[in-house]
Amino acid sequence: MLSDFYQPPHRILLGPGPSMVDPRVYQAMASPLIGHTDPQFFGVLQDTADLLRYVFGTNNEFTIAVPGTGSAGMEASVVNFVEDGTKVAVFANGFFPDRFTEMRRRQRANVVRFEKPWGEVFGDDEAAEFVGRERPGVVMFVHAETSTGALQPAAAICEAAHRCGALVIGDCVTSLGGMPVDVDANGIDIAYSGTQKCLGAPPGLAPITLSAKALEVMRARRSSCVSWYLDLKLIDEYWGESHRYHHTTPITMFYALREALRLCLQESLEARFARHQLNHRAFVSGIEALGLRMHVREGSRLWTLNTPRLPEGCDDGALRTRLLEEFGIEVLGGFGPLAGKILRVGLMGASSQRQYVLLLLSALETCLGAGGAVQAAESVYSQ
Amino acid sequence: MLSDFYQPPHRILLGPGPSMVDPRVYQAMASPLIGHTDPQFFGVLQDTADLLRYVFGTNNEFTIAVPGTGSAGMEASVVNFVEDGTKVAVFANGFFPDRFTEMRRRQRANVVRFEKPWGEVFGDDEAAEFVGRERPGVVMFVHAETSTGALQPAAAICEAAHRCGALVIGDCVTSLGGMPVDVDANGIDIAYSGTQKCLGAPPGLAPITLSAKALEVMRARRSSCVSWYLDLKLIDEYWGESHRYHHTTPITMFYALREALRLCLQESLEARFARHQLNHRAFVSGIEALGLRMHVREGSRLWTLNTPRLPEGCDDGALRTRLLEEFGIEVLGGFGPLAGKILRVGLMGASSQRQYVLLLLSALETCLGAGGAVQAAESVYSQ
Repeated sequence: MLSDFYQPPHRILLGPGPSMVDPRVYQAMASPLIGHTDPQFFGVLQDTADLLRYVFGTNNEFTIAVPGTGSAGMEASVVNFVEDGTKVAVFANGFFPDRFTEMRRRQRANVVRFEKPWGEVFGDDEAAEFVGRERPGVVMFVHAETSTGALQPAAAICEAAHRCGALVIGDCVTSLGGMPVDVDANGIDIAYSGTQKCLGAPPGLAPITLSAKALEVMRARRSSCVSWYLDLKLIDEYWGESHRYHHTTPITMFYALREALRLCLQESLEARFARHQLNHRAFVSGIEALGLRMHVREGSRLWTLNTPRLPEGCDDGALRTRLLEEFGIEVLGGFGPLAGKILRVGLMGASSQRQYVLLLLSALETCLGAGGAVQAAESVYSQ
Repeated sequence: MLSDFYQPPHRILLGPGPSMVDPRVYQAMASPLIGHTDPQFFGVLQDTADLLRYVFGTNNEFTIAVPGTGSAGMEASVVNFVEDGTKVAVFANGFFPDRFTEMRRRQRANVVRFEKPWGEVFGDDEAAEFVGRERPGVVMFVHAETSTGALQPAAAICEAAHRCGALVIGDCVTSLGGMPVDVDANGIDIAYSGTQKCLGAPPGLAPITLSAKALEVMRARRSSCVSWYLDLKLIDEYWGESHRYHHTTPITMFYALREALRLCLQESLEARFARHQLNHRAFVSGIEALGLRMHVREGSRLWTLNTPRLPEGCDDGALRTRLLEEFGIEVLGGFGPLAGKILRVGLMGASSQRQYVLLLLSALETCLGAGGAVQAAESVYSQ
């Protein structure tokens, strides 16, 4: 009702994002605004850039967050690194390469795709062979695919791309802050992410980092980027020393992101990755105890976004409604070729906690009329 | 320092935005996240749309907020309502028509401009004559020009545009919630704004509303919009009954916007406009008592963004630094042809308060070594 202050229901957010947010991040958002041209605010941007370099695993000078959600990061990577006729090679094994392809289509790019069923990943040799054969200007892959739960190793793709002088765009929306991304070690030229998954801030910003080579290509480009709002050259001038006005920065979201990144630093990435891996392992163990199996084969699974296959005949929607209404737990289902076949369970950032794993498994035991899941998970924790 | 929770300095925000934010809005932002596909969240979107209709003065079905700052609203109006070769007529009398022209140029539109010096406005007859002569497909004007402080009346432009079948885009970033916009009465087909000026929320969303005719044109368009992120057709499907996934909505910003709009409703637009007008009048009276004059002629001045001309020889940067450092007051200067010549003083939303008007005038008395400003303003308040 419009007469009421909005009181959200209490939710345990275990879907593909947004994830839970630490109270310290909420506290940061309640800090009073200052202006986007205030010298003090430039310090907030600087801190954010330094902390983003840490989680991205990069020394890239150009490391910022663009003023939109994760998809704005994807669009920024598209519009700034493609001109009419640029040949783009896409590794297509889920929903987000398709979205990327659609963005590219709107930019009149020439797209070639290497397709695999949703949930599979590309081997080093076949990936290198594809890139070597196509000799594109830009290669795109999804490091952590939110629609399937699969992890795509980056190194072989980047090596092959660099051998033919191509730039590599890596979608790290569901890995950054939860699993190693290692931008510099892998050689990803353009990596972007969102704030609302493993970083533990609300949605609203898209971190992005560019290698020296990507920066050089961007600065040398002749035609204007079709987007003014996501033109990284202009945004760079605002973040840089001239602080030239571009847009009114979402101040509050930067307060939130800075604090969420500080939590990453304080926990240390090493401990954070270990936490995500442990909770993933415990969850998988519980799922298997229920007689279910994971959609993605072992070794290619994300720790962050887990995709158990539903039992035959299980009504996906009814199960999720019951989880939401009786247990206050949000998980999402599959879509596209995986509609009705999987659950998408995010154990990311502040949502990656033993207590939530146990609660969800216990709720699944109740809903599916099975047992043993909690016990199996507990045995992982007690190892 | 990265070791510290960020404690922003206390600022009185009297620049062109962001403005001050009511404590209730900060409180709303500290509410726990729920998911962007949670049925409860669709209620938040619905409330926001209803409240936006109220402040826009419209019954438009399509009334939403896009996931970016005010400039994203401008870009959405560009990319969704122009195809290759669309003729666009721009009323150019400040910075934002130039930004709009630049966005149009990137979309390869055919732009014709009616130019006036920064701070002047277009008369009804000359505006109608320009539109009638050019017979464009789209007309763009800025209702409230943030770079100059001038108010452009909308009705004659809209009438002339509709006579030749054109759509009208109106930039209402600095008027919405502080001055009457009256979208339906004026006939503005596409009106957009930002949240951080007179609406009193932090920056991060761009409210936008489309007339039935604009909606029809958008739905009938043949080519794809060059932007996927700001494609209003896709965003409409998420807001509409199918709630089809597009992007991860910035949940927290919607909590903030809903609460800020509730404050507008509770105050009533009538009282809110009267408050903005009164504080503007008091400020102008104080400025004139200092021997300064307003850049915009009386009758064309915004109540929301005030542009006093600086005294001859006054160092703009030094004055603003002193206001910021000694008094904690943020005001901005002019740019482009007005660089060094004016101050830009926002009295918008929660920043439009008697106490801030008096504080700023008192600080200006100190900095300029003059007197009488506070007294002149007080005499307006006591009328």
